[in-house]
Amino acid sequence: MKHKIYIVGIGPGREDMMTGQALAALEQSDVIVGYTVYLELLGERFAEKEQLSTPMRQEKERCRLCFQEAEKGKQVSLICSGDAGIYGMASLMYEIGKEYPDTVLEVIPGITAASSGGAALGAPINHDFCVISLSDLLTPWEKIERRLLAAAEGDFAIVIYNPASRKRKDYLKKACELLLGTIEENRCCGYVENIGREGTRICTCTLKELKDQEVNMFTTVFIGNSGSEILDGKLITKRGYQIERNTDICRNHGGERTV
Amino acid sequence: MKHKIYIVGIGPGREDMMTGQALAALEQSDVIVGYTVYLELLGERFAEKEQLSTPMRQEKERCRLCFQEAEKGKQVSLICSGDAGIYGMASLMYEIGKEYPDTVLEVIPGITAASSGGAALGAPINHDFCVISLSDLLTPWEKIERRLLAAAEGDFAIVIYNPASRKRKDYLKKACELLLGTIEENRCCGYVENIGREGTRICTCTLKELKDQEVNMFTTVFIGNSGSEILDGKLITKRGYQIERNTDICRNHGGERTV
Repeated sequence: MKHKIYIVGIGPGREDMMTGQALAALEQSDVIVGYTVYLELLGERFAEKEQLSTPMRQEKERCRLCFQEAEKGKQVSLICSGDAGIYGMASLMYEIGKEYPDTVLEVIPGITAASSGGAALGAPINHDFCVISLSDLLTPWEKIERRLLAAAEGDFAIVIYNPASRKRKDYLKKACELLLGTIEENRCCGYVENIGREGTRICTCTLKELKDQEVNMFTTVFIGNSGSEILDGKLITKRGYQIERNTDICRNHGGERTV
Repeated sequence: MKHKIYIVGIGPGREDMMTGQALAALEQSDVIVGYTVYLELLGERFAEKEQLSTPMRQEKERCRLCFQEAEKGKQVSLICSGDAGIYGMASLMYEIGKEYPDTVLEVIPGITAASSGGAALGAPINHDFCVISLSDLLTPWEKIERRLLAAAEGDFAIVIYNPASRKRKDYLKKACELLLGTIEENRCCGYVENIGREGTRICTCTLKELKDQEVNMFTTVFIGNSGSEILDGKLITKRGYQIERNTDICRNHGGERTV
């Protein structure tokens, strides 16, 4: 019989933002594997389960740990924040899984930051959009720049993951400067920090203002398309072009709320 | 006191793919408003609630219905399939909400088809990606073409929503023909029909093969980026470039599974 490993997207981390399917997979598991911060987010409910972790950056080792535990006959779940298939561990698990032919994988989707952050901001990605990570750990910066420019060329709403880290403090500034070459400076934008966690901070601003905002690895950034507006503090991207364009774009920007 | 309306993403429709937050909003509601097909997906659990609907295309009327019911003092939830803020009703509610200043809106995110379909296919959007709808009801076709080309130019993985409808039978073919101008014909692709519902169908294929697939309004299509592979029937897009490119791309394509 083949062993099955669940790769579970836990969303922002709050239990009520997980799906029933994700909770059931964790309930059924003997071992929960994950990055320490995510294991802590799970809280009391799964505290009795065996929990295993590897340090940050040791993702391959974390994957191997899952297969090794599964081969012992244990039911294993690997948890990822947000959606397991969006900058999560799903693809690496499939790649490493080639070495473990007696194991099958099941990805259980979760609420990604584009959805949870979008809901907090209003409706910033209610039409075609791109998701781009500014992390250049695994992707050359030139490729990231090419994608930012292509997203602008296509007039997509843009969601930016990993806009900064301790070592990459100025990456959002660099990305905004690049985009300001083709996008007008009063383009409506917004960002959310600590979505669905303590200390949630929700801001709207223009692209020019976004350039100088302080963000961190817990921030998700939204850049509207050419028709996006800020309505009563919410960043709104229309579903289409049925309603006449409001020329008074971004008349109400620069708001900040703390939830 | 202001009335609050919940705009709730119910995911693919299966109760265990909804979040606890979404279920709680519906439980608290006196009235659930939605397109008939989505109300039916909710099933038994909410059958006792007052349910209101308007026909397809009458989305503005459906929004107004929510505000009118809320003004009567009822707790209203408007349901959308997938995520309420991704091709859902969230932005229209905010726009129409300008006429109802005594009402506040809260968007509750759900699992969108990019996540649920992606999980079914493996890990097709595990790196930067674009989401594009082929519906030209509200968007000029020229704009859709421009976005497809920009997505190819940026080497994004691409998720296509609404690849066809009764009136737009050949839109996926048109989109593939356009993309084949810049993307190689053996690019790894896949699609999922009826995600999380009865009759789920999961297929992988090349871009050239995708052109001639029969899809419908319940299909979500995935086009890999230049590094995507089909591994043991799963469509995998790597998290980055840390693992050497496999030149034997798509060696295992053309699979079809029925779940």
